[in-house]
Parts: sequence; C-alpha cells; structure tokens
Amino acid sequence: MTSTLPTDKMANAIRALAMDAVQKANSGHPGMPMGMAEIAVALWAKHHRHNPANPRWINRDRFVISNGHGSMLQYALLHLSGYDLSMDEIKNFRQLHSKTPGHPEYEITEGVETTTGPLGQGLTNAVGMALAEKLLAAEFNKPGFGVVDHFTYVFLGDGCLMEGISHEACSLAGTLRLSKLIALYDDNGISIDGKVDGWFTDDTPKRFEAYGWNVIRNVDGHDVTAVDAAIAQAKTSNKPTLICCKTIIGKGAPNMQGSDKVHGAALGDKEITATREAISWTHMPFEVPADVYAAWDAKATGQALENEWNALFKAYDERYPQEAGELLRRMKGELPGNLDDAMKAYVASCVEKKEAIATRKASQNAIQALAPVLPEFLGGSADLTGSNLTNWKECVAVRSDQPGNHVNYGVREFGMAAIMNGIALHGGYLPFGATFLTFSDYSRNALRMAALMKIRSLFVFTHDSIGLGEDGPTHQSVEHISSLRLIPNLDNWRPCDTVESAVAWQQAVKRSNGPSTLIFSRQNLPYMERSEQQIADIQRGGYVLRDAADAKAILIATGSEVELAMKSADELAMQGVAVRVVSMPSTDVFDRQDAAYKASVLTKGLPRVAVEAGVTDFWYKYVGLEGAVVGIDTFGESAPAGVLFKHFGFTTENVVAKVKSVLA
Amino acid sequence: MTSTLPTDKMANAIRALAMDAVQKANSGHPGMPMGMAEIAVALWAKHHRHNPANPRWINRDRFVISNGHGSMLQYALLHLSGYDLSMDEIKNFRQLHSKTPGHPEYEITEGVETTTGPLGQGLTNAVGMALAEKLLAAEFNKPGFGVVDHFTYVFLGDGCLMEGISHEACSLAGTLRLSKLIALYDDNGISIDGKVDGWFTDDTPKRFEAYGWNVIRNVDGHDVTAVDAAIAQAKTSNKPTLICCKTIIGKGAPNMQGSDKVHGAALGDKEITATREAISWTHMPFEVPADVYAAWDAKATGQALENEWNALFKAYDERYPQEAGELLRRMKGELPGNLDDAMKAYVASCVEKKEAIATRKASQNAIQALAPVLPEFLGGSADLTGSNLTNWKECVAVRSDQPGNHVNYGVREFGMAAIMNGIALHGGYLPFGATFLTFSDYSRNALRMAALMKIRSLFVFTHDSIGLGEDGPTHQSVEHISSLRLIPNLDNWRPCDTVESAVAWQQAVKRSNGPSTLIFSRQNLPYMERSEQQIADIQRGGYVLRDAADAKAILIATGSEVELAMKSADELAMQGVAVRVVSMPSTDVFDRQDAAYKASVLTKGLPRVAVEAGVTDFWYKYVGLEGAVVGIDTFGESAPAGVLFKHFGFTTENVVAKVKSVLA
Repeated sequence: MTSTLPTDKMANAIRALAMDAVQKANSGHPGMPMGMAEIAVALWAKHHRHNPANPRWINRDRFVISNGHGSMLQYALLHLSGYDLSMDEIKNFRQLHSKTPGHPEYEITEGVETTTGPLGQGLTNAVGMALAEKLLAAEFNKPGFGVVDHFTYVFLGDGCLMEGISHEACSLAGTLRLSKLIALYDDNGISIDGKVDGWFTDDTPKRFEAYGWNVIRNVDGHDVTAVDAAIAQAKTSNKPTLICCKTIIGKGAPNMQGSDKVHGAALGDKEITATREAISWTHMPFEVPADVYAAWDAKATGQALENEWNALFKAYDERYPQEAGELLRRMKGELPGNLDDAMKAYVASCVEKKEAIATRKASQNAIQALAPVLPEFLGGSADLTGSNLTNWKECVAVRSDQPGNHVNYGVREFGMAAIMNGIALHGGYLPFGATFLTFSDYSRNALRMAALMKIRSLFVFTHDSIGLGEDGPTHQSVEHISSLRLIPNLDNWRPCDTVESAVAWQQAVKRSNGPSTLIFSRQNLPYMERSEQQIADIQRGGYVLRDAADAKAILIATGSEVELAMKSADELAMQGVAVRVVSMPSTDVFDRQDAAYKASVLTKGLPRVAVEAGVTDFWYKYVGLEGAVVGIDTFGESAPAGVLFKHFGFTTENVVAKVKSVLA
Repeated sequence: MTSTLPTDKMANAIRALAMDAVQKANSGHPGMPMGMAEIAVALWAKHHRHNPANPRWINRDRFVISNGHGSMLQYALLHLSGYDLSMDEIKNFRQLHSKTPGHPEYEITEGVETTTGPLGQGLTNAVGMALAEKLLAAEFNKPGFGVVDHFTYVFLGDGCLMEGISHEACSLAGTLRLSKLIALYDDNGISIDGKVDGWFTDDTPKRFEAYGWNVIRNVDGHDVTAVDAAIAQAKTSNKPTLICCKTIIGKGAPNMQGSDKVHGAALGDKEITATREAISWTHMPFEVPADVYAAWDAKATGQALENEWNALFKAYDERYPQEAGELLRRMKGELPGNLDDAMKAYVASCVEKKEAIATRKASQNAIQALAPVLPEFLGGSADLTGSNLTNWKECVAVRSDQPGNHVNYGVREFGMAAIMNGIALHGGYLPFGATFLTFSDYSRNALRMAALMKIRSLFVFTHDSIGLGEDGPTHQSVEHISSLRLIPNLDNWRPCDTVESAVAWQQAVKRSNGPSTLIFSRQNLPYMERSEQQIADIQRGGYVLRDAADAKAILIATGSEVELAMKSADELAMQGVAVRVVSMPSTDVFDRQDAAYKASVLTKGLPRVAVEAGVTDFWYKYVGLEGAVVGIDTFGESAPAGVLFKHFGFTTENVVAKVKSVLA
C-alpha cells in the first residue's frame, strides 16, 4: 500500500483509462472518474482492505460506487489493483457481454459489490452492508477475535443526495450509529442540467449532522493527503461519516472540466489530446506504464491482509468451531440442513389445525416456524410491524446499542428494500421486510434491482387487495400483484391459506437465484383441504385444488379468491356444470414448470375463467381471448371489506355467470 | 373569525367527532385529529382564508392534511366550519360511497384539496400548490392587484418526514423559496411501531434549516395562542416555514394518549366515556352544541373574504381584461380554442417533413408547437432536460428569484411527479415533467395518485427500451410500459414517429379526466406514411397502419417496433403471406373504443403476433393463447442499441417466423 510513485500519476492513470475507454465506446461518463481520481487513490492506496485475488474474502472492506455512471472509475481500480479484469475488458467497455458494462453490475465483474446506476440506491445498499457488518460482528465476534471487522466505503454524488432514498437511508444509518460506514461525497456542484445551485442548495453537511452523522467538511478532493487524513479520522468516529470533498468534475480536461459537458459523453479526440498534455500523460490509449501498475498493485498487500485474517479465523475456528462453521455457512448463503424437516412438521401442524386465519397471520406463523432453524433471518417492517406481522416471539429489535434480528425501518419503504438488498449482498443474513402491498410502489425499483442482481431479498406485502377495507383506494392494491409479476426474475407468491403460506415462505427462502415477494391478506381466509400430492404440488406455483372428471371449464384463482372459486365450483356442480379449480399462488413459478405439468393443470381446450381481486389484463395470458376474468379494473373504494367484495362482483353468482358465459 | 367561545371547546368538538366517528365505523385513526385539534383551531379560526360556500374560490388558501389517515380532522373542520358535509356523512365515516372515506379524497368531498394517505405525498402536493401560486402570482398580479395571493398550509407527521419524498420536496421548496408554504409538524414522537426514537432521531429543525427553511421550534401544539403566533410569524417569512409543534397523540384520551395504541383503531366505549369526562365534553355522540357551531362557522367571514377578492378582481378585469379572462380560463382548466388548429398545422408539417428522428425529439417538436398556444404549459425534467428534451426555445427556467415555465426538478423523480400533481390540483398550469422510463419506478405511486384523482399531469418518459443502449439493464425499460398500463385511469402513449408523437401530446393535453404518460425513444425512428383517415384514427389508440385484402394474420406493434412490424410485413408479402399491421400507440385508449371499431382493427379469427421491446405477458390480452409475442422477458444488456435489438430477437427473420408459427 505504500509506493514511491507520486500519487498524481496513480490518479492520472484512472483519468486516462476512463477517457480512453469512453472515447472508444463513444458512450459513457468520464466526468466522475476524472473528478474522483484522487479520492480513489486516497481510499484504495491508503485504506481499502481487500484482496484482488479473492474478491469474496469475507472480511474485505466493501466498496460501492453509488454514482454508478462513473463505472470506469471502478473498472480502472479493479484493473490497476490486480483483479481479474484485463485491459481487453477495459477496451471492451459497454459492449455486449463484456465484464465492463455501462454501470457496475454485481456478478458480472468480480469486485463489484452491488449493481448501481439508479441513483441513491448504492448508498442505501452500503447502509445495508454496514448494518449487516455491525450485526454480524455483534453476533460472531469474541474477545480477541474480531473476525467480522470491516468498513463499508461508498462514493456518491449530488444526484444520490437529491434522491429521497438518501434521506431514508442516511437518517436510519445515523439512528443506528453505523460507525463503519464512510461516505465520500463528490461535491462538484454539477449535475446533468448544469450548475446545481439552481435546483439544489441544501447545506448538505448540516443535513447530515441533523441525521447524527460525523461530517468532515471542506476537504479538497484533489488533495490525496487531505482525503487520506479525512478517511483516517472517519475510521475513528462512533458515527457514520460523510466526507465532503470539493472536486472539479472531469478534472484534467482543460477546456471541459467543471461543466456538465464532461459528465456523460466522450471528450472527443481533441480534448483527449489536450488532457494528455495537461496532465502530462504521455502514454498511448490503454497503455499503463509498469511503475504505475506497481504502485496500484494490491495483490501482495491484499493477500497478506487475508492471510492475517485467515490465521485469526483459524484460531477462532479452533476455539469456537460451531460459530466459525455457522459464519462460513451463512456467508456462503447455504441453508441449514434441517430447514425442510422443520417446514414439513410445520405444514403438518397446519393441516392438523385447519385454521381460518388471515394469511398475514399464517405468514407470521410460518416465520415463527422458520426462525428457530434460520438464525440468519433478519426481519423488519416499514413501521407496520403489528399489521404486517413480520415479528416473532423471540425476535429482538435492532437498536443503535442493541444487536437484534428485527429492524424497525421506520416509514421508509424504498430505503428498507434497498437496505435489505445491501444486507443480502453483504451476506450473513437473510433479510425480509414488509409494508402494505400498495406501497410496493414506493420500493419498486429496489425490487427490480434485487431481481436483476439475483439476490435473496424477501419482500413481504400484506393487506393485498380491496380486502384491506376502510382505508380506501389509496391503500387498496388493484394493479400491484400483476405489475410485480412483470418484473423479470421476481417470484411472486399470493397464497390462499396457512399451508400455501408455509410453502410460499419455504420456497422463497430456498430460492438461491433471486428475490421473492410474499403477498398476504388482511382478512381471514378459510383452510383448504388437500391431498399429500396437492400439498407437494404447491411448490410448482399452480396446481389442481379441486378436479372433476368431466370438467367443462377451469377456474383459476389466487389468494383470497380461491375460496370464492371453490364455492362457485360447488354452486356450478349443483347446477350440473363440473369445473376444475386451479390454485395459482405463483404464476412465475408455474410458468417455469415443464410443459406436461402445465398442460395437466391447464388442459388445452377447456375454457378458463380467472378470479383475482385485481386488474384483469394479466390473466388473459392464461384464459386467452375466449376466456373471462373476474377482477377489478378501477380503483377500490373505502368501505368494509365484505361490502367491497360484493360491490366489485366477487360473488358466487357473478363467477358462475362468467363460467357459463365461456362454456362452448 | 373571532369568537368568545374558549378555544378548548372548539378543539374538543374535533376530538369528539373524531373518536365517535371512528368508534361507529370501528375503523380509523383518532390519534392524529385528537393530537392536532388545537393546531387546527389556531389555523382555521385565526388564519385560514377560505369560503365554505365556494370551495373552488380561486384565491382560497390551500389546506392539505399530508398525514391523511387523520381524515376525521379534515371532515370535522369542513363540517364545523360550514362546508357541504352533513353530520350524516360524518356518521357514515368510511362507508361505501360516503363523502367521508377512510382517507381524504379529492372530488369526493368538497374542500379536500388533494387525496392523501400515501405518506409524504400530501406535503409534496402542497409544495406544488405553493409553486403554482408563486408562478401564477408573478404571471398575473399587477401593481395594486394581488389577485393571486394565498398561502398553502400543510399538516404532516413523523411518517411524512421519514419518507424520502419529503426530502425531495422540501429541498426544492427551500431552493425555490416558496415563502407562502407553511407546514405544521405534528411532533408527537409516535409512529405505528411505537416511540420513534428507536428508528427516527433526526434533528428535524436542523434538517429543514439545511434546506433553507424558516423553522419555528418548540411550539406547544396544544396552546392555540402559541400556534397562532407561530403561524403569524411564518406568514412574514421570505422562506417556507416549518412549525414544529410538540403534541400528544390522542390527547384527551386519559388512558391511551401518548401511545401508538391511539393511532389507528377505535378507542372503545370505555375510553371514549373516560375521554368525554376528561375533556368535559358532555354531549352525545355526533351532537355539537350551537355555540360551538357558531364559533367554528366560517361562512360569513369566508363570503366576506371572497367578496373582497371579487371586488378586487372586478377592478382587475376592468383594467386588465385579457389577463383576467386568461386567469379564469386557466383556473378552470379550459383549453384555448386554437389548440386543435395549431396541432393540425403542426401534424401537416410533420407529414410534409417526413423526418426520421427520435420520438423524444418529435416530442420536443410537439412541445414547441403547443407552447405558443398553451401559456399554461409548465414543463420540467428530473435533471435530464437535454436527454428528455422537455424544454423549448422560449421556455424560461424557474428559479427562486425568476418566474418561468420550465422547472429543473433536480434528481427527484418522485418529488417531481407529486409536485406536478400539486400544480395540477392548484390550477392555472398544465404540468409536464420527464425522466427516463425506467425511473418511472421511483415516481410510480404519484402516477397512481394522479390517476386516482383524475387530474391532468403529463408524465414524459424517454429512453423507453433496450434502445437506450450502453447504459445497460439498470436503465433499460423492459417491464415498465406494460406495468404502467395496469394502473387504472392512466392513459399511456408510446408513439412510433413524429405524427403519432404529435397526436399523443394533443390527446394527453386534451384529456380532462386523468393523467397520461408520453413514452418516447432515445433512438431515431422512421416516418410512417398514412392516409388522412389513418392520421385521424391515431387518436383511437390503435389503428390499421398497413392492410392487406387477404390478410392471414395481424401484426400489432408499438413505438420503435412499428418499423420492424412494417418491414416484416414486407418480407412476409414477398413470401406470399399477406398480413395487416396495427400500430397501437395507446392500448388504454384503444380499449375504450366501441366494439365495432375494435373488431375492424383486430378482426376476429385472424391470428395475431404482437411486437414490443418489453415483457410479453400483457400482450396475450390481444393475441390470445393461439397468438405469439415478440418481446423480452429478461433484463436488458449493456451494448449499443443496434446490437441489442438483434441480440434479443427483434429481427425481421424472427418476426416472420413467429407469424408463420401462428398461421392456422
């Protein structure tokens, strides 16, 4: 980490790579990497503890670029310090299937801790990482054995600070005193529309002091020594730290620096030539001299750091073998071996009890069954704990001075979801967090990011339809379930009773390649009788809940409408029309089943009617042009739930009529 | 406005109505109305300038309850002060089709300025109202004629302040110095999960000072005189004001006040009896004595206020008849008579030019054509002006000291959308604002609120698909267009060229019963030849762009994929397969057409293939189980746009093959 090379050459290597890669791609953002180059030198050369040879080292410092459009800064750092990111990849910036996409992408590029670009979320992920570190340290460290002990560093810009989510995340980070979170603010006074003083005049240091942060003001972001000193001070604080670095965007480009022109487009050959001259960088594009590589090289120091930790962990393992094994298991995201047994027993108890309860209560019961075998469970709610029922008997509320496993996120839906993503990315915990389904709107892009990153965040949404009742249309979901189903790689579950709720939880927990939503009712729902095979088929997303040998039609329903479908089938049977009822708790999972299974459930040629207390559009995928949907294509109303279901046509009469209308 | 009745009786009338209505409904939130009762007395009895007999008086003060769960406070105020809201409606609280739904709803209840409940948005609507007032005053007031001159008052709680959108809105309100915005903070230290100090420890006054607000600290929220004085001070400030009122939630309920128990459930008969005793309220439920009514009655004072203004406006009208007429027209939301002519001429110029440009550029051209005839246009962008192209030649940027008609909202997508809603609700402007389509996620619930309120906010979203290119999957919309279509009462337009873009803008502007999205490409799209009839049919949402007498199939496409559908039809024709091409810029609008028209476009029996660079689920509604969709059901990739369209199968070959696969 020490080098005799002047730090300006190290910084200029970043500038050159960034401007040349953007120029070659003719697309990208040179301004941020050129403006934050010295900050990056100060952090990476003086403080950042990581091992390029093992980007998954458990105790590495986490590093996040929340202003993700500055991806070339990250790629330059990874390349220069010795990660598996070749110069060919740098040259291939922003090309199909390169390791250097337009924004940093988790699991595309080794060393990228989270996918960023949607502003404010990287910062919020970093809050989640710092929270995970704090809780994990409290859970696993022993006297003399700080096996979990790292910082989380995050770069951010004006854009991140304007976004509302920065308020949610940083307010909570201050409250929880996440002292190992260190944010470096690229205060260049420029955003895409120009000089920010026309639309962004916050006293940002004061704002962060109001959150309970340690704020280091007026740091010259182009003075490596000054930034180095600020980071050193930050590391000693008992609060999260914001280091405010005054910088010049695109610094080095003599005619364009300091303006929005340098933010998001290639500099052009002429300005690149002028920049080379101005910063005395005499090398060809994509050429880095050996002494610069040597100065940046973190392989040896990184391996030494990890070796040191490995020795510590070995001693820890000898003294606390169970904890050591658990920590490794949890950091790998492996589930305990007794999970399925526990859930099998729990499902059996549901079958025995046949309880008619709200699925949100069924969800809580499932959480209660899972928690003893899943110490990695880290629950929470956006200030609706008693409504969402995400807590369980033994859970402990997380406070600034109290480690625990249930987070009161406050009324911060988007922040909660992106913090959960940071927790999942850090490893060691399996986060779940809840709000009302309608407020999934607030957090929607964080759900999308979880799906894109293929991480295990579990989003619990209760009060899932007009069944919410009197709070009215602002709180009643109509379009939400369908619209969540449209997000690629997001599994959505809307169970109809205690058993389906249990299976939904089990499947969501076991899913290793993406997030899930768990969508529950406010109101009580009856228990459904099932055979062993039917119980086994729930995990296929859709299954025949009631069949008839001579079925003339198929009723497809989810969640609270399964009861109505079953009653309607009874009524139709009395009228001499045999129908099949398919319960479809997860269309996403059902769609992944093999063709034969799908055909056995939705038999070709049988007319279909879908019943769901939500918008109808989505269901034509299953019922086709000849089928029908009983749903709601308007907003809800404020009234007791029972009144509303009737008002909106969720009656046996209406469903029966709809089925008859589609019979050939 | 002056009364000899002690203010505590006035406040207790609110308490009694709130607790009794919640008790009768057995649902609702008594805590906030009981806690903010004195604040309401101070504002409504001493400052609020309004006329119960004419809730649409142009120059009324605007009053918003951002903590909308406290709806009974608003209903009590409206009832007591003389609005058309009877005691029967109060008794009917939260029942189907009452004027007293669970949360305040715009246009359900006279005197409710905006629908609130989703936390933080009411506050943000209020920022929009205050901005509209400031701009409108600058535009219309003349020396001695302050015809637009009112305050915007907003009540808010801890929940609103935790929400990220409060940061976006209040930061911008401070920057723009919206000095006639006065926010009253119900600082009761309680949210649903309990005492907020476990999850919300902001120094809120300091935070708002950092935004450039005038902050009045430590006001006793149960001291009418103190609140009155604070409001008086706030009215003199040249900044927006936050009045921090220390309160006790549910004040008056002797055994439950000050705890989360009183927030969101009926108090119960026993506690209600105890409360009656504690506050010396001896009247029966829903009984208000005459002296209390008399003290609250604002009909006479309100009429006097409006009469005074009417006299002023009459004189203004005599001196500035054109301005007076324009102000009235614009406040009514009536469009100028020459709008259609201007657009007809503009469409003709598009037909003549046949430009192949990006639809975002076509959108800018349409804005340029509309702006001269629509002085109410108030554009903006969330820091992507040069990318969204929402500005026009003559537009003037809004600054704290500079009125204008284009707002740099900063990187605040959600704030922008909810501020736009506030502008639309205030009247006088037709707001539009833009970001990338993917970041519609950030603002989604504000779009929903606009749709629920049936207001004319125009949401412009550019860079609408993988055509965005190198920025990659974080920025590429895949599910967004379809998911916006699922929001009830939101019209979505995705035009394919200059002419469709013009018609989309025209229809969105003319729509009087709801918001629209206008979705545009980053990349150039070719001009499509059309007959007069075809041009006329664009406004029907979907129309036959290319027909064939013996069509064997229908290709349905939107936006950038219309070109591909047309080329595929050419190729199929060469191969002897005649197909019809339907351009469907707005499925929402198409769905509202009469059955005969729809059948003429999507003729029964003809197999269909939809082509859209987005998720496929939605399109089965039009193509059925036997049809096919060419779309993308995964996330995008970072690469040049041309490479991506090919990679994801948007090729003539693939479309041709899909069409052949569905031919009977």
